[in-house]
Amino acid sequence: MREVSIVGVGIHKFGRFGEKPFTEIGVEAALMALKDANMAWGKIQAAFCSRVNLPSTTGLRVLTQLGRTGIPIVDVEAACAAGGAALRQAHMLVASGFCDYAMAIGVEKMPRGFIDPEMLYDKWQVHVGLSQIPMYWAMRAQRHMYEYGTTVEQMGMVAVKNHKNSVHNPYAMYQRAFTLEEVLNSAIVCDPIRLLMICAPDEGAAAAIVCPSQEAHKWSSKPIKIAACVHKIALYPHTSAPAYTGSAKVVSPFITEYAANAAYEEAGLGPEDLDVVELQDTEAHNEIEATEYLGLCSEGGGGPLVESGATEIGGRIPVNPSGGLISKGEPIGASHLGQVFEIVTQLRGQAGERQVDGAKVGLCHVLGAGGNCAITILKR
Amino acid sequence: MREVSIVGVGIHKFGRFGEKPFTEIGVEAALMALKDANMAWGKIQAAFCSRVNLPSTTGLRVLTQLGRTGIPIVDVEAACAAGGAALRQAHMLVASGFCDYAMAIGVEKMPRGFIDPEMLYDKWQVHVGLSQIPMYWAMRAQRHMYEYGTTVEQMGMVAVKNHKNSVHNPYAMYQRAFTLEEVLNSAIVCDPIRLLMICAPDEGAAAAIVCPSQEAHKWSSKPIKIAACVHKIALYPHTSAPAYTGSAKVVSPFITEYAANAAYEEAGLGPEDLDVVELQDTEAHNEIEATEYLGLCSEGGGGPLVESGATEIGGRIPVNPSGGLISKGEPIGASHLGQVFEIVTQLRGQAGERQVDGAKVGLCHVLGAGGNCAITILKR
Repeated sequence: MREVSIVGVGIHKFGRFGEKPFTEIGVEAALMALKDANMAWGKIQAAFCSRVNLPSTTGLRVLTQLGRTGIPIVDVEAACAAGGAALRQAHMLVASGFCDYAMAIGVEKMPRGFIDPEMLYDKWQVHVGLSQIPMYWAMRAQRHMYEYGTTVEQMGMVAVKNHKNSVHNPYAMYQRAFTLEEVLNSAIVCDPIRLLMICAPDEGAAAAIVCPSQEAHKWSSKPIKIAACVHKIALYPHTSAPAYTGSAKVVSPFITEYAANAAYEEAGLGPEDLDVVELQDTEAHNEIEATEYLGLCSEGGGGPLVESGATEIGGRIPVNPSGGLISKGEPIGASHLGQVFEIVTQLRGQAGERQVDGAKVGLCHVLGAGGNCAITILKR
Repeated sequence: MREVSIVGVGIHKFGRFGEKPFTEIGVEAALMALKDANMAWGKIQAAFCSRVNLPSTTGLRVLTQLGRTGIPIVDVEAACAAGGAALRQAHMLVASGFCDYAMAIGVEKMPRGFIDPEMLYDKWQVHVGLSQIPMYWAMRAQRHMYEYGTTVEQMGMVAVKNHKNSVHNPYAMYQRAFTLEEVLNSAIVCDPIRLLMICAPDEGAAAAIVCPSQEAHKWSSKPIKIAACVHKIALYPHTSAPAYTGSAKVVSPFITEYAANAAYEEAGLGPEDLDVVELQDTEAHNEIEATEYLGLCSEGGGGPLVESGATEIGGRIPVNPSGGLISKGEPIGASHLGQVFEIVTQLRGQAGERQVDGAKVGLCHVLGAGGNCAITILKR
């Protein structure tokens, strides 16, 4: 297999854009990535589009705006991990030599509010009232508080940090800092989760162009290598009883840990090698959990980690310097490629006021319905 | 790249199954394919699920019923070509050595009647009343009649042949023969297209298991080689004006011809090597056109071809021995893998009363919205 690098990235701001069609949103991200690589659209030989809430042939509708070149354009879907699955298909095609230039693009327009529970849950779950995602997060958070002494203040600190970072990210939906008091006093969605700890569904797009590392310097003065690109599905469903009693861990690692182990092995790197991380902070407690499962701290150490300031920009291991999903929102199909945009920008040293100094290795992590988890490790 | 073979196929009858959940429909096809290969689900290392009208993570919901093994399960969508795209991803992964055992599965439950035009067309098309697929087919058919003297009787003969073949296919939605008179006297949908010439949207599933040809004899006494697996997108949209004036052909081949050329090149075979074909007969005229673009006859020769009996079982080049979409219906995500099921069955000599004697090479063809076309060539 050939080593593969990212030579171009593009993004369309995450947020709400009214009647603006998804085709325009996607085209902006695709054109930005092509311009970034100084590459003509006609050079791309295959494209994978991640989207969850958009219609059939979203990728084709977006990318044929750039011209019909005959290449296969495939929509790819794996819940919140869709962008990872799209990048992975592009990565495998180029690594194996099926083609030299491929694009992964995520495009999304989410409806407002919560998702139809019938879309996500079994009938019995809806019947007993466990019909919305935050209920499951809240149970996990409560269990974490019980097991490890994690506090609601520590969860609040995650939200404070991410919202603070977003002020310097022009692509974030919300670019506004909040105090810990404001976060903790915001409306309770499902105890202990507060409104300002939670991400909003929204709209946006992001794209990445990959090619063999050997060719990368033709297209970019700062190509970024893909060290690992992994997609796994949990051995236990996210919503299974063991996930809320702690007993699942005895039988099998949680999905993030399982996928992270595979990614670290593929990359030949460990968590100690990471300089910057973008991870799935659908709500603040998810970030605390994920920092543990990614090995950034010990089991149960996620609360103290954020409290110590280690995950701030300038800290030992900055997490979500982009502002995370809490400030960017989660346009599901586009979220992982949005993380890839951020980490590529960080590793190139082009992140301006949110730059993590000297970052050489970064990790992107998404986790979603059905136990879908994708992890991409990038290095310069 | 390694040569890849299909060692197991499965299908769930196409039709209407009321409240039966798509998970059960899909699981039946997956289990049949595993049983056919005498393979345990735990052996599969990657799975791709084609579906168009089903919710997020359809493949995961279906296949985790067989057990959560951690493997990536990705939904793939490319309109009517979705199944081809899914099989192609599985094929590429195994050909390149990313894994040894992969499954492609198509699962679908379509709503009744026509698709929401906003899903398929630009606003201007809906505004001028070109809001349903049969209108476009009818225009193409009318143009073909004008250019080549094709007759409505010849279109009727396609429907008569396919409905006749379906009588021997237990997986077809409709298993009933009609006379030419019955077809021609059935309701006009959009002149010259009659109701009995047109396929119905429906439900169903089909699956195929692939592995390196070198390993194939461990799993199947009759493995079938994938000679080509191609997915292309039209250089002209299906709905563009040139498609209805004949002038597009001057500039660029139509999509089926374009994809077929690529598939024949990949396989090192030509149309003269084919023994049996399953092609996209969304309506009868599509079959006439496709036989030309696939090179089974000369340009404009599709009408005389069916009239001559050459495409009957027992004829020179049998087309749609399964009964085609006209009798099976089109569960979009499952249709291509349904064709693959049929051609594998034919090449194994297991097609019973619809068997094409001595068939060694077969082709599967799907064509759909946006100009998506997938072609798979199989040989024993």
